[in-house]
Amino acid sequence: MAKEAVAKTAEQLGKEQRAISVAEFFEKNRHLLGFDNPTKALLTVVKEAVDNSLDACEEAHILPDIKVIIKTVEENVFRVTVEDNGPGIVKQQIPHIFARLLYGSKFGRGKQGRGQQGIGISAAVLYAQLTTGKGTLILSKPAKDKPTHKMELKLDTTKNEPKVLHEEDLKDGPLKHTGTSITLEIQGKYIQSKHSVDEYMRQTAIMNPHANIHYENPPGEKFNWKRSIEKMPKLPTEIKPHPHGVEMGILERMAHATASRTIASFLQNDFCRVGSTSAEEICRLAGLDSGASARTLTGDQIKKLYESIQKVKLMRPPTDCLAPIGTKMFEEGLRTEFKPEFVRAITRDPVVYRGNPFQIEAAIAYGGSLALTQSGEVASEDAVQQPVKLIRYANKMPLLYEQSSCALTKAVQGIKWKRYGLEQSGGGLPSGPASIIVHICSTWVPYTSEGKEAIASYPEIIEEVKLAIQECARDLMRYVSHKARGELAEKKREIFRKYSMELAVSIHAITGEDKEKLQAKLLKIAEKMYKQQGGDEIEEEKPAPAHNEEE
Amino acid sequence: MAKEAVAKTAEQLGKEQRAISVAEFFEKNRHLLGFDNPTKALLTVVKEAVDNSLDACEEAHILPDIKVIIKTVEENVFRVTVEDNGPGIVKQQIPHIFARLLYGSKFGRGKQGRGQQGIGISAAVLYAQLTTGKGTLILSKPAKDKPTHKMELKLDTTKNEPKVLHEEDLKDGPLKHTGTSITLEIQGKYIQSKHSVDEYMRQTAIMNPHANIHYENPPGEKFNWKRSIEKMPKLPTEIKPHPHGVEMGILERMAHATASRTIASFLQNDFCRVGSTSAEEICRLAGLDSGASARTLTGDQIKKLYESIQKVKLMRPPTDCLAPIGTKMFEEGLRTEFKPEFVRAITRDPVVYRGNPFQIEAAIAYGGSLALTQSGEVASEDAVQQPVKLIRYANKMPLLYEQSSCALTKAVQGIKWKRYGLEQSGGGLPSGPASIIVHICSTWVPYTSEGKEAIASYPEIIEEVKLAIQECARDLMRYVSHKARGELAEKKREIFRKYSMELAVSIHAITGEDKEKLQAKLLKIAEKMYKQQGGDEIEEEKPAPAHNEEE
Repeated sequence: MAKEAVAKTAEQLGKEQRAISVAEFFEKNRHLLGFDNPTKALLTVVKEAVDNSLDACEEAHILPDIKVIIKTVEENVFRVTVEDNGPGIVKQQIPHIFARLLYGSKFGRGKQGRGQQGIGISAAVLYAQLTTGKGTLILSKPAKDKPTHKMELKLDTTKNEPKVLHEEDLKDGPLKHTGTSITLEIQGKYIQSKHSVDEYMRQTAIMNPHANIHYENPPGEKFNWKRSIEKMPKLPTEIKPHPHGVEMGILERMAHATASRTIASFLQNDFCRVGSTSAEEICRLAGLDSGASARTLTGDQIKKLYESIQKVKLMRPPTDCLAPIGTKMFEEGLRTEFKPEFVRAITRDPVVYRGNPFQIEAAIAYGGSLALTQSGEVASEDAVQQPVKLIRYANKMPLLYEQSSCALTKAVQGIKWKRYGLEQSGGGLPSGPASIIVHICSTWVPYTSEGKEAIASYPEIIEEVKLAIQECARDLMRYVSHKARGELAEKKREIFRKYSMELAVSIHAITGEDKEKLQAKLLKIAEKMYKQQGGDEIEEEKPAPAHNEEE
Repeated sequence: MAKEAVAKTAEQLGKEQRAISVAEFFEKNRHLLGFDNPTKALLTVVKEAVDNSLDACEEAHILPDIKVIIKTVEENVFRVTVEDNGPGIVKQQIPHIFARLLYGSKFGRGKQGRGQQGIGISAAVLYAQLTTGKGTLILSKPAKDKPTHKMELKLDTTKNEPKVLHEEDLKDGPLKHTGTSITLEIQGKYIQSKHSVDEYMRQTAIMNPHANIHYENPPGEKFNWKRSIEKMPKLPTEIKPHPHGVEMGILERMAHATASRTIASFLQNDFCRVGSTSAEEICRLAGLDSGASARTLTGDQIKKLYESIQKVKLMRPPTDCLAPIGTKMFEEGLRTEFKPEFVRAITRDPVVYRGNPFQIEAAIAYGGSLALTQSGEVASEDAVQQPVKLIRYANKMPLLYEQSSCALTKAVQGIKWKRYGLEQSGGGLPSGPASIIVHICSTWVPYTSEGKEAIASYPEIIEEVKLAIQECARDLMRYVSHKARGELAEKKREIFRKYSMELAVSIHAITGEDKEKLQAKLLKIAEKMYKQQGGDEIEEEKPAPAHNEEE
């Protein structure tokens, strides 16, 4: 059946060359976008829609109300609806946002956001048509006094362009005020595991305590996470690129496309942290006239400009553009979710990798529901020696897959956990009834793939994560050893109680003194001793009764 | 410096939306293409150029002569030249092939090849201009009697289109007959390690024994791998998609774009393994008229067609389209490279994952240079207990990065190596003075990223790799235990030799018989015994002398 292998000339080979649409590329490579298997595909579809909804609410400064409903259509086919109360989308943008890959407002704009590539939601639409042949239904109401736009869309993969299957304007749509709703029909698989949509929704709720989230899973269970804070969290802002993080080729492109007239004004207007003094200094070092046109710089001049930029000292990029969740809200979210006996969160100061500001937050929650089995019983010693539960976030968005190749995981594994009182074998995650939570926020999160599942291993990021977790771990160690000392003292007291009766019997046999009086006396001596020691000052394994005998 | 966060309406958000060129996307995400760091970037540039050269020679049935020269321009800046004797490229295609992402002849064509995406070499050109601002120089001679085309190119990232900086035709270029040469200037880092260009070239030579490869590294060392076989290897051929591997959305697209008039002819002409009987059967099950037009099928009809395709039994895709290297050539390549004391290669029969045919080859080389230290000495026991060297190939192309996330690695780790006499700790690679080599060839290799560094973990692939390696491992075990028995026998003989002298002295003390005669007799008895046992039939630890004493 296979075609015969025939030697080809340049002429013949030339005729076979063609342009490949980016949609065709990702259709064939859909595992790159998080659609490797049916379980992951269901999660990815929900994730892309929820991320878009939360981002949209944030842009419009609206406290989010998000509804996620997944219904089983037939075996392994699901209808997913995600609805928000965001600002809505104007009619002419709907087809492009939902049915065109590499289209959006978030790409490389220097602003922290869940979305950053302009691929995710259109990839979900593509996946829906690929697996069920169905178009995606969008409802969007961009203003209170305007109708709701209804559109059914597919993506023309050979052109990477939207195909509108149906459109109409509804006077009385289901959406109140403003908002957007998307409904996709996809092949998928629903499971209840650490990679499930249920888990994703739960982790999203922890990180977004300002959101009301309603979720119905395929078996029909309903979950409601009520907002625990009635105020918008700190919002991220936009920054311009920092000159030290820009490569030569990008500098050239920016110079040739600038709206500024001169090189000096280009440097000041198109970058952050460049004032007039720095701009003049850069031009002087490059041997360029600061008043010359930036748009006509030659390749050699760009190279000189690039090199002199590296030589001039500039302030690091501003970092107030980032919006971490904050220690208090972070701990609050974890308390609500895990009811732990101990929780500690840390927000590190923002720092920079390759010109991009980023900030790490980490937390450890210990005990409480984490020490229980799934059926709610106290776990056995063995179960407690399971690895801790690691929860990873990037720009407030849970990362559920690719844990082992993620920089956040590597940072946790790189800590010497025995120093902090947790077991650790073979450089893996530590063990214990605990959860470690890490959050990276950045204007540009370096994901290892388009599927946004893991963070690339920049040393600056790993270092910051380590520092944050170590700080939490020190407090955890204090808590655990305090608790352990308390438990030890209690155990000793218990042993002494039993022992004192035997002792009393022996003394009674020798002296004839009353057994119960004797025991009461012995216990009194012991209590006094424990009080002196404050109950947790016992340093050695020397048992208390022996000590008592010497008196 | 950061812009104030201002609430935005749908109207305002709409104005911020824009299309992102695929070149801009990969410029910002260049780690996805294998340009994460300077060391990897240098390797990736060489790899993309060499892969293209080998593929071009294969297409034209030319025994490849490849030259790779890397010169240091300044610290961490290199000039890379790769030249081949392939068919050359016609003038009008040069800019598109080298300076336009997602352009090529190899995408999804159902043919095994090193390149398959139409991204690699243009990404290298993009990386060059990004880091040094320099254009890339191409020389290409598409026919013996025609001039050599010379072109200097950049890639316009905002449009994903080539920019020709300079072009001319040379009457007397450096290229003889036909061929192509590419020269790029890039930022990079040259190291000598298991991730180095040197190692990549070496591994490429092992897998391509029909190629002459000349390589000069930055320190100026010259390597020449002469072809050891003067015949073109089996060449891959092209196949049509198999109906069972095609998704609903793709079926729809194919139907609407088909050149065939009817549904029946569409099924027979555009797919493999569908004859007229199967085509009729599919139409009947779908309730469709087999003579109706395929181009006008509705969404519902496509769905029915898709479902009935799944129900009809079809032959598996043809697998003669694949071109493995073959057991003999594989072992030959390894013997030349490692001079091992033992080598065994296996080529499995082709099988199928998701409609794509693939084939696994594996080999184990043991001892020889693998048991030596880098300085050429016999390694100590400790050194021998290092993990084996794992070499991975996909479509004859070495994979140097992302070893731990690769399906080929997981398969090796998943084998219980103790059964085969190799140490293995904690589910990692086995230890020993050996190398394990795995090769997957397929019409569509499922890489985990655009950088083509690791294979996605399809269970079918992992299973085939395991079976192939286990077969090699069984032979290795036989060899090693045979060798160990031989060594044990020799050791025992040695012990007996020493012991026999002492025994002779003792007997002499009792009987006064001549010591040397006594020892000679004892040794003779022992030799006879060993001969009977064939030197390697010793089953127990019972020492030979004791046995002798009983006589």
